[in-house]
Amino acid sequence: MQPFGVTGVVIGNEVLTAKVTEANGAWMIKRLRERGVPLRAVHVVADEVDEIVETLLMARRRARWVITSGGIGPTHDDVTIRAVALALGRQVVRMPEIEAAVRAHYGEKVTLQALRLAEAPEGSELVSHPAARYPVVACEGVFMLPGVPELFKLQLESVLPRFETAKVVLGVLYLSLPEPPIAAVLDAVALSQPEVAIGSYPTFDPQAGYRTKITVEHAEAAVVAQVIERLVRELPAGSIVRRE
Amino acid sequence: MQPFGVTGVVIGNEVLTAKVTEANGAWMIKRLRERGVPLRAVHVVADEVDEIVETLLMARRRARWVITSGGIGPTHDDVTIRAVALALGRQVVRMPEIEAAVRAHYGEKVTLQALRLAEAPEGSELVSHPAARYPVVACEGVFMLPGVPELFKLQLESVLPRFETAKVVLGVLYLSLPEPPIAAVLDAVALSQPEVAIGSYPTFDPQAGYRTKITVEHAEAAVVAQVIERLVRELPAGSIVRRE
Repeated sequence: MQPFGVTGVVIGNEVLTAKVTEANGAWMIKRLRERGVPLRAVHVVADEVDEIVETLLMARRRARWVITSGGIGPTHDDVTIRAVALALGRQVVRMPEIEAAVRAHYGEKVTLQALRLAEAPEGSELVSHPAARYPVVACEGVFMLPGVPELFKLQLESVLPRFETAKVVLGVLYLSLPEPPIAAVLDAVALSQPEVAIGSYPTFDPQAGYRTKITVEHAEAAVVAQVIERLVRELPAGSIVRRE
Repeated sequence: MQPFGVTGVVIGNEVLTAKVTEANGAWMIKRLRERGVPLRAVHVVADEVDEIVETLLMARRRARWVITSGGIGPTHDDVTIRAVALALGRQVVRMPEIEAAVRAHYGEKVTLQALRLAEAPEGSELVSHPAARYPVVACEGVFMLPGVPELFKLQLESVLPRFETAKVVLGVLYLSLPEPPIAAVLDAVALSQPEVAIGSYPTFDPQAGYRTKITVEHAEAAVVAQVIERLVRELPAGSIVRRE
């Protein structure tokens, strides 16, 4: 299968050690869905070069684009640029446009560490946002976003238009039955129409008002409607609580 | 490096498509930290066998244990058992103990689909929880937990005692400076004491009362105290807003 959609890679010791609550992966999920960009996976990994490289290699086999969050900055734990360069087999170079912005900001007090902000994998392009001091570095479909949530949100909007969208129509059935007695019908439908994404989600919450939620997704509303009708016909009579 | 700690694999199309908010990965992060179990990574992937297999193989190279969430059940989208079996090079078999529980629950109405609940990679062990109808299947350090959040929480408690804990002492400094002017000091300390985990987290929130948060972690309180003292000595005078 050709790579398609986006995979997110959140670089964050602080998330894995529960010092801060994961926010950027969650925000990415929400905004990509709102725009209709397929999301393949979200990986939260430690600030370790070899782990990030391995995750990027896996992500790129499946997703056309990768958004990384975090590990961008001047300190020793900011290893994203180096890891992306390694994964892509490229050198790390200093980008003249970012270097100029760093020097303009720090003036004579500029340090070697501050200039690390200008580093990027060789051949990167820059994606600018009018409200951000520095552009996003992008290379071979990998967009390296900052981890600070305000900046991540801001910069995500500047890269979102780059991703191909895929229309998805969603149909939902809520059933009064648990999964086992409906599984055979779902199996048959899923097997005969593999191009339709069918999900089945039981709940054990007595307040929910249903036992299993069935989701049906496809690009065409007519296909979703046809599968929903087929399910209504083949599922046990009276088992449908409501439809959406 | 020997694999250590836990990696989480959340199997969830419904999370990636923003139909439900990710909860089990977040809960795992919180509970593992509270217990002192190192968490290496959390991967949220689609309900696709090959993707789960690839993620499991990567996870097992780094983590001693893997907790999966979701994809357990009788319907066509419940592919976790098959994926784990493939990743471990094992057959899928029916576990007599679970089969007996399924048959006891469904009686004569038991279906082939319901009996899928009894499937497990060959050679699995079962981890029982008194409040749960079915045990957790575990094989070669991979614990396959249900995705329904109430059940996930319940079953996580039954597997948590299996994981080795590592004491971590945390020291925190809040600084009035952004990262660039402090990066050289952090670099020097991190380089000379690589066994100490040092994190640096800038904020751009003017209400935060600081510009950069520095975290220092190690198993020994004395080592954390020594690194904190060294940072206080070497960082620009007056830059420390508060300590924790």
